[in-house]
Amino acid sequence: MPDTVTARACANIALVKYWGKRDALQNLPSAGSLSLTLAALSTETTVTYDDALEHDILELDGVVASPADLGRTSAFLDLVRSATGVGIRARVTSRNEFPTASGLASSASGYAALALAATRAAGLTLTERQLSILARRGSGSAARSVFGGFARMRTGSTSEEAYAEPVASPLLDRIRMVVAVVGGGTTKTHASRDAMEHTAATSPFYNAWLELVPRDLEAAEAALAAGDLEALGHIAEANALAMHASAMTARPAIFYWQPTTLALHNEVRGLRACGLAAWATMDAGPHVKVITNDEDAPTLAMRLKDIEGVTAVTISAAGPPASVVDTVSPISIVSLG
Amino acid sequence: MPDTVTARACANIALVKYWGKRDALQNLPSAGSLSLTLAALSTETTVTYDDALEHDILELDGVVASPADLGRTSAFLDLVRSATGVGIRARVTSRNEFPTASGLASSASGYAALALAATRAAGLTLTERQLSILARRGSGSAARSVFGGFARMRTGSTSEEAYAEPVASPLLDRIRMVVAVVGGGTTKTHASRDAMEHTAATSPFYNAWLELVPRDLEAAEAALAAGDLEALGHIAEANALAMHASAMTARPAIFYWQPTTLALHNEVRGLRACGLAAWATMDAGPHVKVITNDEDAPTLAMRLKDIEGVTAVTISAAGPPASVVDTVSPISIVSLG
Repeated sequence: MPDTVTARACANIALVKYWGKRDALQNLPSAGSLSLTLAALSTETTVTYDDALEHDILELDGVVASPADLGRTSAFLDLVRSATGVGIRARVTSRNEFPTASGLASSASGYAALALAATRAAGLTLTERQLSILARRGSGSAARSVFGGFARMRTGSTSEEAYAEPVASPLLDRIRMVVAVVGGGTTKTHASRDAMEHTAATSPFYNAWLELVPRDLEAAEAALAAGDLEALGHIAEANALAMHASAMTARPAIFYWQPTTLALHNEVRGLRACGLAAWATMDAGPHVKVITNDEDAPTLAMRLKDIEGVTAVTISAAGPPASVVDTVSPISIVSLG
Repeated sequence: MPDTVTARACANIALVKYWGKRDALQNLPSAGSLSLTLAALSTETTVTYDDALEHDILELDGVVASPADLGRTSAFLDLVRSATGVGIRARVTSRNEFPTASGLASSASGYAALALAATRAAGLTLTERQLSILARRGSGSAARSVFGGFARMRTGSTSEEAYAEPVASPLLDRIRMVVAVVGGGTTKTHASRDAMEHTAATSPFYNAWLELVPRDLEAAEAALAAGDLEALGHIAEANALAMHASAMTARPAIFYWQPTTLALHNEVRGLRACGLAAWATMDAGPHVKVITNDEDAPTLAMRLKDIEGVTAVTISAAGPPASVVDTVSPISIVSLG
């Protein structure tokens, strides 16, 4: 049984957003979602089970993790330990290959990579579906990062039915996302979990949001099947606005936008009016991700990087599924001379 | 019968917003609203019926009005003419005493002043309620500008029941609004009428908005009765966000905010966290109006005027009802020497 495995997974950006849980313990979503996995934002995670350890150890981007992050990771590893019967503690090191100090959410790629590395290192080979269900327990959006390209999250009626699955589309090769990072990568003001819960409990628009998602999903999947980037872009932008509208109507309001967020959004609409393929989507932070194609991505990136308050711009194509990284075994070179 | 009358009315800012009509022709609102009339933003309008005129003439702020504005004003004057049987055309001159090039909506004060001047000049003295109903035909929010201080708009089941009425509150003397004007007073991108209609037709959150308004009205009126500025401020800010959330979830989206709008909003929340009385409300434009009290208004004004993109800041107390302006009759000075 190998006791060290390294896995890599990419972050994903939802085109139809995940915003609200129906079961916090099992991390079951209240509605489906649809995403694009991004090659440019990846996480590499190594898990080593070591019976000399008295507790799990977590290092994130070269730094010992906070007790809160460690606690969440340990709870996740307990799921793996209870499935395998392996009671040994683990050393986990994880590194994000994201734009510097981006503040972009890495829990999707992080838990997808951790789910894969932690199970393989424990000698367990899961199907992609099983892996997706497990990753979901760590972070709802991680269920989608198990897959490359477009992925649809099912709501499911039980935990075993709440998994993601890949969605084929002729758009896969030419879709791009331009990720514009706003500000200095400050910590999120609101943890997504708490923000979702607060929105569900207090926004007068939350029920309408839940009713909207299946309609947007159906339209987005039709656009993917038809290879219609424009239709997909319009749905994604409108759906992101609806998600933020539900958050900002929570009482008290949850605001993720900064003035630069709005400036980027205005610029995207302006460039679109000039004929470029460009539709904005925003998640639980101030950054803006622009859906575009391979042809227009460089122009967009040039325009967005000049907006005041933008600290980094990255172009990404669709990313691959989560995978185990082949690590070269150390070879002893014995001198024969 | 006097044939020239000048009337003055003040603009009002809704604390619980008017956003949606159920009858465009009669200008009947889909829900109630609640506002504060502002002393600092007033319109003075003079109406002269003149049988030498072949058509109505309209001058706005010293400039001959556009055909569209003239057409809307003539249609309104036709209501007065049909009520009085006076068929004579009128010369209308109207002047806004607003912060320079503000782009602040003047239709509320404009139609309240016009309703009063046009009826009095035609020899008709309406009750305040009748005047409110008439003003509503020109602009839904004008029904409230007939009154000073706080005013509640009734939805009514018929045109005769859709009027505003004053609401008493111990807050009247100490409430202030700090009006922060954003940008150079550009014309609104979306006319409110069209924007309301588009929101009602396409926003997935519009029904939830209509269900929210009566709850916010009830809470706001309770806060007014109790003299609770903090409760009133929280409701007003949350209600404004809900109105904008309904507009930005229209498809395509209606966006009134500029980056400076969001910077002002952030600053207001920051100052509130520091203990100041400050709650933001925004209408169909990029400007921000901050609800506060007499004590904190100067500090707020100083802070907001330094934000990049803010071109004018005005502090206003509650304003008076619409009234006829006593115009001094020209006196011939005859030299007796």
